[in-house]
Amino acid sequence: MTTGVRRRMGVEERRQQLIGVALDLFSRRSPDDVSIDEIASAAGISRPLVYHYFPGKLSLYEAALRRASDDLAERFVEPPEGPLGARLLRVMRRFFDFVDEHGPGFSALMRGGPAAGSTTANALIDGVRQAAYQQILSHLRIERPPARLELVVRSWIALAEATALLWLDGRRIPRAELEVQLVHDFAALAAVSAAADPETAAVLRAALAGEDPADSPFANLVAGLVNLAG
Amino acid sequence: MTTGVRRRMGVEERRQQLIGVALDLFSRRSPDDVSIDEIASAAGISRPLVYHYFPGKLSLYEAALRRASDDLAERFVEPPEGPLGARLLRVMRRFFDFVDEHGPGFSALMRGGPAAGSTTANALIDGVRQAAYQQILSHLRIERPPARLELVVRSWIALAEATALLWLDGRRIPRAELEVQLVHDFAALAAVSAAADPETAAVLRAALAGEDPADSPFANLVAGLVNLAG
Repeated sequence: MTTGVRRRMGVEERRQQLIGVALDLFSRRSPDDVSIDEIASAAGISRPLVYHYFPGKLSLYEAALRRASDDLAERFVEPPEGPLGARLLRVMRRFFDFVDEHGPGFSALMRGGPAAGSTTANALIDGVRQAAYQQILSHLRIERPPARLELVVRSWIALAEATALLWLDGRRIPRAELEVQLVHDFAALAAVSAAADPETAAVLRAALAGEDPADSPFANLVAGLVNLAG
Repeated sequence: MTTGVRRRMGVEERRQQLIGVALDLFSRRSPDDVSIDEIASAAGISRPLVYHYFPGKLSLYEAALRRASDDLAERFVEPPEGPLGARLLRVMRRFFDFVDEHGPGFSALMRGGPAAGSTTANALIDGVRQAAYQQILSHLRIERPPARLELVVRSWIALAEATALLWLDGRRIPRAELEVQLVHDFAALAAVSAAADPETAAVLRAALAGEDPADSPFANLVAGLVNLAG
């Protein structure tokens, strides 16, 4: 259960190691069920030494959450090349990788878990949502979106979170299917708004101008709907 | 600031009055900013008397939250008559009425506010979501939905919550527009899933069989999308 590391670590190195060990434990089980003793044991150090680096479990949890947040935000970064739908699908794959790796911890956090009410935890969650939002805007090549487009993007981010949480609860649907579904959902929600709002429609038309009609989630979706309605 | 009621109230009557006064205050401002002194003053009783009925602010907050949850769940109830889209739109109007009436309290609660981590508060929120879910299933005339349809319904409920929260943050879009949009969003998300899943498609086809094609959010949506794609 110890890492086997016996040489003397520097302060920052030890802190980073503890954060990694804690994140691993907080990801595998509900963080409420992880004790400082267990973290100390997994890191191969004494309980008092853990407290030397972190004043308590909440501060270690927040440090682990910060690392996980940075990791997730990095996975949103996608080069602005190729069809938009394919870009979003690659991001969805990396998002589900993350959710898969941190399942129990992700569920506990998003359902109001151990750090509920923690200003730091709420700020980190908001920061990840904001990173996702900014990435999508950059791919849509717009800096200041109209209010209706902002709502579409932000509410779709909430939909993606909810979908991932529902997936974790039993994993009854293959994640690859949900990754594609979320890309289609984005196109569908954007289309609903665009159908009622010319400003959103103009942004979407411009962003989709380079799409291959044979390989666009938007075109696929319309074809599927027409087929369903017919 | 007092209610002017001076006659002696019975215990349960006084409790209910306090809950009503507290809910009103917790709805108008972030509950963290509401003090027991203020509640006592608004109820026209002394601070010690408030503590005679409720051991502390959290228990009074939870009682107020329970009343608000029951109220919201009741607003979801809609007779199973007429087109599905029109039914859902009426429910969306009542949902936005509720959100409008309880704006600051709703935001604070859903963003991880004062009762964050409270088992009671989380259970009440889950109960409201479950009530919404059961209502939608009953209108779709299905008791045990396939996993993909369950995901559509539950994730749309999360989308509706997120849309309401985003609306409260500045109210930059008329709520009537968002009420219609959420009906369209439901049709769109269901259609995305149905396009990939025959089981979901069958349930939706059966549920929509009685729809007037000229007045169906689904038909409207397909027309709008075809127009947009063309």
